[in-house]
Amino acid sequence: MKTGLIILAAGKGTRMNSELPKVLHPIAGEPMLVHAMASGAVLAPDCTVIVAGHGAAQVEAAALEYDPDVTVVAQDEQLGTAHAVAQARKALDAFDGTALVLYGDTPFVRAETLEKMQDALTRHDLVVLGFEAADPARYGRLILQGDRLDRIVEYKDASDEERAITLCNSGVVACKSDLLFDLIDAVGNDNAAGEYYLTDIVEIARTRGLSATAVTCAEEETMGVNSRVDLAAADAAFQARARQTLMEDGVTMMAPETVYLARDTVIGRDTVIEPNVVFGPGVTVESGTTIRAFSHLEGCHVSRGAIVGPYARLRPGAELAEDVRIGNFVEIKNAQLAEGAKVNHLSYIGDATVGRKTNIGAGTITCNYDGVMKHHTHVGENAFIGSNTMLVAPVSIGDGAMTGSGSVITSDVEPDALALARAPQVEKPGMARKLFEMLKAKKAKMQRGS
Amino acid sequence: MKTGLIILAAGKGTRMNSELPKVLHPIAGEPMLVHAMASGAVLAPDCTVIVAGHGAAQVEAAALEYDPDVTVVAQDEQLGTAHAVAQARKALDAFDGTALVLYGDTPFVRAETLEKMQDALTRHDLVVLGFEAADPARYGRLILQGDRLDRIVEYKDASDEERAITLCNSGVVACKSDLLFDLIDAVGNDNAAGEYYLTDIVEIARTRGLSATAVTCAEEETMGVNSRVDLAAADAAFQARARQTLMEDGVTMMAPETVYLARDTVIGRDTVIEPNVVFGPGVTVESGTTIRAFSHLEGCHVSRGAIVGPYARLRPGAELAEDVRIGNFVEIKNAQLAEGAKVNHLSYIGDATVGRKTNIGAGTITCNYDGVMKHHTHVGENAFIGSNTMLVAPVSIGDGAMTGSGSVITSDVEPDALALARAPQVEKPGMARKLFEMLKAKKAKMQRGS
Amino acid sequence: MKTGLIILAAGKGTRMNSELPKVLHPIAGEPMLVHAMASGAVLAPDCTVIVAGHGAAQVEAAALEYDPDVTVVAQDEQLGTAHAVAQARKALDAFDGTALVLYGDTPFVRAETLEKMQDALTRHDLVVLGFEAADPARYGRLILQGDRLDRIVEYKDASDEERAITLCNSGVVACKSDLLFDLIDAVGNDNAAGEYYLTDIVEIARTRGLSATAVTCAEEETMGVNSRVDLAAADAAFQARARQTLMEDGVTMMAPETVYLARDTVIGRDTVIEPNVVFGPGVTVESGTTIRAFSHLEGCHVSRGAIVGPYARLRPGAELAEDVRIGNFVEIKNAQLAEGAKVNHLSYIGDATVGRKTNIGAGTITCNYDGVMKHHTHVGENAFIGSNTMLVAPVSIGDGAMTGSGSVITSDVEPDALALARAPQVEKPGMARKLFEMLKAKKAKMQRGS
Repeated sequence: MKTGLIILAAGKGTRMNSELPKVLHPIAGEPMLVHAMASGAVLAPDCTVIVAGHGAAQVEAAALEYDPDVTVVAQDEQLGTAHAVAQARKALDAFDGTALVLYGDTPFVRAETLEKMQDALTRHDLVVLGFEAADPARYGRLILQGDRLDRIVEYKDASDEERAITLCNSGVVACKSDLLFDLIDAVGNDNAAGEYYLTDIVEIARTRGLSATAVTCAEEETMGVNSRVDLAAADAAFQARARQTLMEDGVTMMAPETVYLARDTVIGRDTVIEPNVVFGPGVTVESGTTIRAFSHLEGCHVSRGAIVGPYARLRPGAELAEDVRIGNFVEIKNAQLAEGAKVNHLSYIGDATVGRKTNIGAGTITCNYDGVMKHHTHVGENAFIGSNTMLVAPVSIGDGAMTGSGSVITSDVEPDALALARAPQVEKPGMARKLFEMLKAKKAKMQRGS
Repeated sequence: MKTGLIILAAGKGTRMNSELPKVLHPIAGEPMLVHAMASGAVLAPDCTVIVAGHGAAQVEAAALEYDPDVTVVAQDEQLGTAHAVAQARKALDAFDGTALVLYGDTPFVRAETLEKMQDALTRHDLVVLGFEAADPARYGRLILQGDRLDRIVEYKDASDEERAITLCNSGVVACKSDLLFDLIDAVGNDNAAGEYYLTDIVEIARTRGLSATAVTCAEEETMGVNSRVDLAAADAAFQARARQTLMEDGVTMMAPETVYLARDTVIGRDTVIEPNVVFGPGVTVESGTTIRAFSHLEGCHVSRGAIVGPYARLRPGAELAEDVRIGNFVEIKNAQLAEGAKVNHLSYIGDATVGRKTNIGAGTITCNYDGVMKHHTHVGENAFIGSNTMLVAPVSIGDGAMTGSGSVITSDVEPDALALARAPQVEKPGMARKLFEMLKAKKAKMQRGS
Repeated sequence: MKTGLIILAAGKGTRMNSELPKVLHPIAGEPMLVHAMASGAVLAPDCTVIVAGHGAAQVEAAALEYDPDVTVVAQDEQLGTAHAVAQARKALDAFDGTALVLYGDTPFVRAETLEKMQDALTRHDLVVLGFEAADPARYGRLILQGDRLDRIVEYKDASDEERAITLCNSGVVACKSDLLFDLIDAVGNDNAAGEYYLTDIVEIARTRGLSATAVTCAEEETMGVNSRVDLAAADAAFQARARQTLMEDGVTMMAPETVYLARDTVIGRDTVIEPNVVFGPGVTVESGTTIRAFSHLEGCHVSRGAIVGPYARLRPGAELAEDVRIGNFVEIKNAQLAEGAKVNHLSYIGDATVGRKTNIGAGTITCNYDGVMKHHTHVGENAFIGSNTMLVAPVSIGDGAMTGSGSVITSDVEPDALALARAPQVEKPGMARKLFEMLKAKKAKMQRGS
């Protein structure tokens, strides 16, 4: 059976108090829509339809960036969740399979939950995802008879007995695609808000003698985001889970609550993460490395035995081979460092390749930008770049070569050569004392004058 | 009706275990006394009197720095709160208005609470601020008859019935100024400690047939500070409230618990604050900016569209116009950067102006200090400062000019000119290999020798 | 009476999911075994025996690094706690004194608890350490008759009445050394696991008519570590206690939950620690200093009045005298800075001495490594090192000397002299404009070509 996903992502999110469409607000550095898409992606869907509304162009761009194969459809007016789902009809026309309705602002539904819903669909016509609410508050309640879902009662319409039920409606539903659109056709908008509610399909299914059921998940999976406070809480929930998983997988975090992870962070066993480390998207760290305090990594790879930081910034395209050392106040961007290379202090290495066991001295800068274009720097293996060397790209330093500290290197350097660009040291005896005296006199004069 | 504030700030705070007077211990980077003064300042008082005692000179200096118009009076001996208030008598002599007594170590009373007290004073002679204590412990209890405050019972004197009361005394009182001093004259010190207690004026007022009442506030408003642990808790309470307010105002904080705010931090809507950012006093950030991880801002302004950090330090006087970019390991001090200027890596820009769209290369330093005085650097617009340029101030770089990387610029550079100060590159073939061999031989010899 | 410690440190810690032996996993930057050893060391033991098993060589190395006087014995097979203790027999042969059995993975037993156990031994033959468990779960229960310990009942063998007991067994025991080994000889392995349990000595002692008792400690003292999640929790518990102690001792931490401390961190009264500071092992900070945000300190000393950071990294051997200032993006390693010296921006000072009141300009680097060896730099007092000076070690700068910014200093500089190594500034009028035009044309051509 094929699987189709419909992800509702049209809401404005008034309480977000933002120009940005709600589903594009970030959790762990990525739009929450991407988290919802990734959550659904574990089912390997044959078709994914994103229903966009507010900020549709931005939403479409973000969705396609994550997965170019999704279909984005527009819900021009926001007339309720059933109306939103109806916009996916054309994209799923004659789709012979299951349709699963997810929400762009409910990003944490787990794979096993979606699989349980698919499984339940083999025995029922319609499956609704419920959660046991610690504080059911004003959620709609799922009224079950045995394993059959009888109906969903909104809080305001519920009897005291029904309000005592703690199994609540998450809004997530699964159903054969053609049946879903059939049921939706029957949904009316005869209610206070004048909206078409997806929830109503449960009642419609019952009147048609169809079988509905509920699958239950953990409350945190259905955590929705309606405000920036919710957003921060969702991010915190994500972080807590991600940290726990890494620790179980054999990663040491000295102060896990100070380590900020991304959705796709991969860290190997017996790697140690010191306090205050931020991982942006796209980072893989192999086993047995050390990421020291105050480091910031994005879009990079760190191999076994490497030591990074403290205060190291690895930007996209940084690739560290085994046993590389990146020290403090060092920025690496789009650069490949071969085994055992070292950049220990106060350097910027961008658009570069650095060979095995090469030592890059403190204060080294690859001058990769000429004001118009970016250029490449190559440093061979076993080279020694003296402190404060400017490598003016494009430039290549041969294997085993050395540069004198303070040199501006504009031409290629041969292997085993020493390159220098340095003015001779001149000493003016007593001149420092004279200068200090002169400056102090000048200052005193200025102060008298003022 | 005029308003006068009396802020008691004489205590030593023995449990602080400190040389610093208690009210000068910082919350969110400023003395807690300043928080108390700012709390009272929302009433736009006509007269503010600070009663200083321990460390009076330091307290006076801090008070006057925040508001040069306050009067600081000395309480040379600490004989109780009524005695402390009495020291303000001369400063408020013939003051025709309300006097409100606040405490320098209770810095969080809210504007609406003080306004409620002022309002209650239109119907009563004396208003005491109470709070509903979750754990009343040994606080004094407010005994009300209807809305009339009958008396304040100290815990040790209270009956079981009175101890069951949870409305407790904060010590904050409001009263017409002349009446306040009248009542204080009647306060005695016939108690175990031999002190004059401000609390006693409630009983005195009742015996004179005056009308007292209580206004209730949230317990956290009356949070007092008696130890460094309390101080940290007060700071945490401040931070939690400030973060919540910013999020409600439309600021995204990816990990709000890692963002440290100051009392006067202003951040616009749709600005994103990454994890681990510290705001010192005096920062304004416009809407739609991004403050990246590990940044530190004090006394600076960041305009719309600017991107700051990671690892950026903005010091007092840093003013970033729209779309400015400040990158990693960059320090900006007392410098104005015009629209679209960029300082992306490892630089120090101090005492400077930088023009529109100018690019400051990695490792650039404004050499603003000659050992005696500070000097100014000007860089025009559309200029390109090569990496590792030393701008030896005072110096001016013209519009559209360029400096070669590694140059020490000591003279002004004309618009559109290229300035260079660079020794030619010299290459010594095979010399690196020889040097390495020589150094290794020397090391081996030393090791044999040792 | 002499005291001997036996610390069991042989476990693999399967749930740690690690190649590293369990007791070597770090808490606050040091192996948890070191914490356990330090905990026992307060008794000034005459003999300490570490029983190592998994990863014995690594465990031995770590133990000897902390205390070269300990004896490490091997438990080649892990046959239970009594078997582990038995391995210490030879090392304690004819030891006339008390033996205390501790655990390398239970690192937080306090001095006063161990002292209470020693005291109890003056009245009893055997002392077991118990703790009142908030959630006794499946711990063994201590069954007391008055102050006599009758037996220890495992959860699975306990009656409902016994399960209601909340005093649980920590496993820590004290006993005269010879008696301990006598009792252990009688322990059998007739149980499901086929292991020899130390716990059984209580029952054996009772059958022999000996007197056993229990001493009770706080539950957090017996917190064990079995997984990385436990490890993080133990670290958090350590940090919470260490922060609380420092605050009580008069240290201000603006956001204590962001300050990461080591076991041996010493900080003086009225020192202020800003948010996000990491202390590695071996740091002493005197009174009245300020450690600003995002600083990282290891193995260093900071004297009174010094100001460190933000973004300062002090590495082992950094010694700051009074009133020294270390600013942002500055690394200090194995260097002594005399009173009032300043290194404010973007510098690396390693293997150096810096004299009184000397100012080190932004971007200064001590070029201490020639690719083979490290060399020393000396800067005298009242010197002024211009920005971006490279001090190519070995080199010495005299008192009162000055270096021009951008200079590479390879020879010693006399006192009061000015040393310069600088190419003259050359200006090429209009050349910047021409270069920009040329580069833009080239870029346009490339784009057309692609």
